[in-house]
Amino acid sequence: MNADPLSSAPSLPIQFADVAAAAGRLRGVAHRTPARTSRTVDEACGASVFFKCENFQRMGAFKFRGAYNALARFSAEQRRAGVIAFSSGNHAQAIALSARLLAMPSVIVMPQDAPASKLAATRGYQREQPGSEVILYDRYTQDREAIGRRIAAERGMTLIPPYDHADVMAGQGTAALELIEDVGPLDALLVCVGGGGLISGCAVAATARSPGIEVWGVEPAAGNDVQQSLAKGEIVHIDTPKTIADGAQTQHCGTLTFAVIRRLVSGVLTVTDAQLVRTMRFFAERMKMVVEPTGCLAAAALLEGAIELRGKRVGVILSGGNVDLAAYAGLLQA
Amino acid sequence: MNADPLSSAPSLPIQFADVAAAAGRLRGVAHRTPARTSRTVDEACGASVFFKCENFQRMGAFKFRGAYNALARFSAEQRRAGVIAFSSGNHAQAIALSARLLAMPSVIVMPQDAPASKLAATRGYQREQPGSEVILYDRYTQDREAIGRRIAAERGMTLIPPYDHADVMAGQGTAALELIEDVGPLDALLVCVGGGGLISGCAVAATARSPGIEVWGVEPAAGNDVQQSLAKGEIVHIDTPKTIADGAQTQHCGTLTFAVIRRLVSGVLTVTDAQLVRTMRFFAERMKMVVEPTGCLAAAALLEGAIELRGKRVGVILSGGNVDLAAYAGLLQA
Repeated sequence: MNADPLSSAPSLPIQFADVAAAAGRLRGVAHRTPARTSRTVDEACGASVFFKCENFQRMGAFKFRGAYNALARFSAEQRRAGVIAFSSGNHAQAIALSARLLAMPSVIVMPQDAPASKLAATRGYQREQPGSEVILYDRYTQDREAIGRRIAAERGMTLIPPYDHADVMAGQGTAALELIEDVGPLDALLVCVGGGGLISGCAVAATARSPGIEVWGVEPAAGNDVQQSLAKGEIVHIDTPKTIADGAQTQHCGTLTFAVIRRLVSGVLTVTDAQLVRTMRFFAERMKMVVEPTGCLAAAALLEGAIELRGKRVGVILSGGNVDLAAYAGLLQA
Repeated sequence: MNADPLSSAPSLPIQFADVAAAAGRLRGVAHRTPARTSRTVDEACGASVFFKCENFQRMGAFKFRGAYNALARFSAEQRRAGVIAFSSGNHAQAIALSARLLAMPSVIVMPQDAPASKLAATRGYQREQPGSEVILYDRYTQDREAIGRRIAAERGMTLIPPYDHADVMAGQGTAALELIEDVGPLDALLVCVGGGGLISGCAVAATARSPGIEVWGVEPAAGNDVQQSLAKGEIVHIDTPKTIADGAQTQHCGTLTFAVIRRLVSGVLTVTDAQLVRTMRFFAERMKMVVEPTGCLAAAALLEGAIELRGKRVGVILSGGNVDLAAYAGLLQA
């Protein structure tokens, strides 16, 4: 259906060449994560399914790819001043680790009530990197953007947003590029959707490297803003959704990511939290892997029958594996 | 220290050629499991550590290698009659799956109180294979060996024991062979020890492929029969040890396995259940993998400091990932 969408899309915010260049920057720095298969899954779905294991990526999620790619493109002056980011999740750790690897200062603005484990992990990546710190704010009384703008201005730091940035999107696309290089052409690719950074980069890579591929997004049923946005033809804002898929608790996707999604993505599917928990258990019990709830979105759509892909070669991106161990154990038992 | 122990060991029950032949039989049938690394582990140990992920093996443990190798060597007559095994653990599933793949009947003798999940998994592998069944016995009133001997005699079936068998040992050795082929020569290899099938096969493969390597066994502190046997120079029998490492609850190793162990293994280390739990949590939290308690033995010896291998290239075999999900979740939380 998308015969050659890229050739007729000069206005897309990223091109395949950007993903290919990102792959060059990430070589030897990011893990080339394995593509795993399961006879049980193939039999259940009647398809050939390849799971791209970004839960095995450095710092535990695909976010490292985009963050490192963005920081690696900084000018000498930008590097000296460093990077600033707002995030309580995987983006925080991705920026902190990438900044350390590139020897630049990082400031991460996190809510006071962020999980202690994420705070500790972020600070762990920042140690031995002068000028780096976590700045906490009160979510109920303070405006994190104002804090960020002030620090960025005072210190001359460059803000890297979690998804709506061309270099971030291009970096995330290397996950799909590697998958197709490793397993061959695919008929379909399933990707989780939060702000749209991963799916937009992957859609550009996959459409270029596996012509005719269908790229499907998967959102939590509780927060289907991108599904709504595609139906309406413009970005829809929603209230912060209540879901265990914390990486997909976005209120809206980005301007740049939506420009790619509306052109290259076939559609967006949704799954419930209960379906995510069953999928998480399946990965632990049968494939011996820890996959975080957000990382289960794409797989859940397939395993729980939100889409039927019999006879097809299907790629599924497992986006990350960062979980609080006690919460994870609780979900395994529930 | 073991300059060329194989050339001076004509009497070993298996030779490297047996492991190489097993690798040929397993090609395209067993998974060539990945070797994974962790910067955290390397920094903590001051070593280069390569984890051989047999938790990702078919049926979830290395046991598939030995079982399939043994069954693949059956004569046409043996195949027609089929195989019998006693086991409530990974050996049961390994035999049932291998028998199905080779289209022969299998009878597995299991205790009545075996976990329902293991019973279901074994029967799952046996379905569609005529003449296959699970036979349950009462551990308190019945003699499983008598039951097995009677059925074997009545049906002409061949008994395959879980470890003390040359073809089983040679098959298990392919795990170490693959690891060294994939990551290069090693200075040391750490392997869990139950009945000794895995470590004996791996010691033969590793000593041949990585001359000078030290092979260390790791047992639960509660059941160090092989450590005692090496000290005494003969096989020591112990009471069934109380440990969460259920795959290492053996009362003694085998005659064939001990012949290899005493010649090629540098020594046996022990770890406690508390150390196994910490190691299991480390794998879940940092490497996003489910490793069963027995599968954590070798890694725990390294991570918990039972041995010091600074500056060395170290292989660690993670033997399996089969856990009851509720029990696993309980250990993650404890």
